Amino acid sequence: MTSGAGWEEQVFLPITNSISSEDNNQIKIGSSVSIEYNQNGQHVSQIDDKGLHNILVLTGYAIDESTGELVPTFDPCDYVKGILISGKILKGNHFKIIGIPSNKLYIIRKKDVHGNITFSLPIKNFNTGTYQVDLRDKVTSFVSLDRDVAKTIVDNVLAKIYAKIYNSLNKEQKDKLYRDVEEIFNYYSIKSLKSNP
Amino acid sequence: MTSGAGWEEQVFLPITNSISSEDNNQIKIGSSVSIEYNQNGQHVSQIDDKGLHNILVLTGYAIDESTGELVPTFDPCDYVKGILISGKILKGNHFKIIGIPSNKLYIIRKKDVHGNITFSLPIKNFNTGTYQVDLRDKVTSFVSLDRDVAKTIVDNVLAKIYAKIYNSLNKEQKDKLYRDVEEIFNYYSIKSLKSNP
Repeated sequence: MTSGAGWEEQVFLPITNSISSEDNNQIKIGSSVSIEYNQNGQHVSQIDDKGLHNILVLTGYAIDESTGELVPTFDPCDYVKGILISGKILKGNHFKIIGIPSNKLYIIRKKDVHGNITFSLPIKNFNTGTYQVDLRDKVTSFVSLDRDVAKTIVDNVLAKIYAKIYNSLNKEQKDKLYRDVEEIFNYYSIKSLKSNP
Repeated sequence: MTSGAGWEEQVFLPITNSISSEDNNQIKIGSSVSIEYNQNGQHVSQIDDKGLHNILVLTGYAIDESTGELVPTFDPCDYVKGILISGKILKGNHFKIIGIPSNKLYIIRKKDVHGNITFSLPIKNFNTGTYQVDLRDKVTSFVSLDRDVAKTIVDNVLAKIYAKIYNSLNKEQKDKLYRDVEEIFNYYSIKSLKSNP
């Protein structure tokens, strides 16, 4: 990070049941979103021998797990947690936040984060003139990650984004990372009442 | 309100220093936003002899008082409070939320609110393909209303929206309303660092 110039452009990757890694430094979220990360990028979220740091909590949003898009719900109790990584959104509508002071973001397990951050997040239907969100017959429900999913996310996604540091961790440190991911990440998922009779 | 059909379409009117009433049931917010309310509409926010009810708190937003538009700041500590009134946004970019269950909204001093609500809120720059918000050199600051401003808002704005009930209040009840508005409403305003050296 160059002093004063801010971080490289970041993408918010929600850590949920619906992420999977693809070839070519890509991550797929649901059916509609693809993210490309920079293998050697300056990620705001970091891994070290003590676990995962700088996790962003987005309140007032829930995730549509089928499409991978975030939905503004206007309920301050809804939230989605994720990581900020250097990269860009290849596919999917998105919302770009330019130069937000990092101290305005709700970041947990903070370590060495300062200055302004520019990031994008995948969002539902941002391509009409007047933005509309349709919440009829929608509910949000709390979702947590079980140990197996947490392990899969670490082995398939985080291990690739943070390849260099991940490969230097010993078994105990990797176990700590599995536990971190299982314990830290949970979120609200948006669902249609009609599809859950 | 027809049972099951929900409320008439509502507009979020932020109660801030920058609102003023115009002719023809219109309210101006800053330089860029005009709202038209329905004089005999079914407003979600209500006035009775005990004061003001059903005030909406929007967290994660601040207001640009010069234009009257709301700005998403991603800071869960920022908020703007306002009232939901039957009407529409005549001028200004806006964001329309369709059919949100009222129990998902952060509503204070609740009274007789249930069912789904459709409402619009004035928002900054929603007319580009990818939505961008530029927060470089921006700060938010807490603003409260002083007694004189609260009185002006009641006499010039609320007295017109709620003409029938307002005219039936006695002096003591009107004084209670001034106090309510002064005490309940406060908000975060977004400002440019450069224009405040």
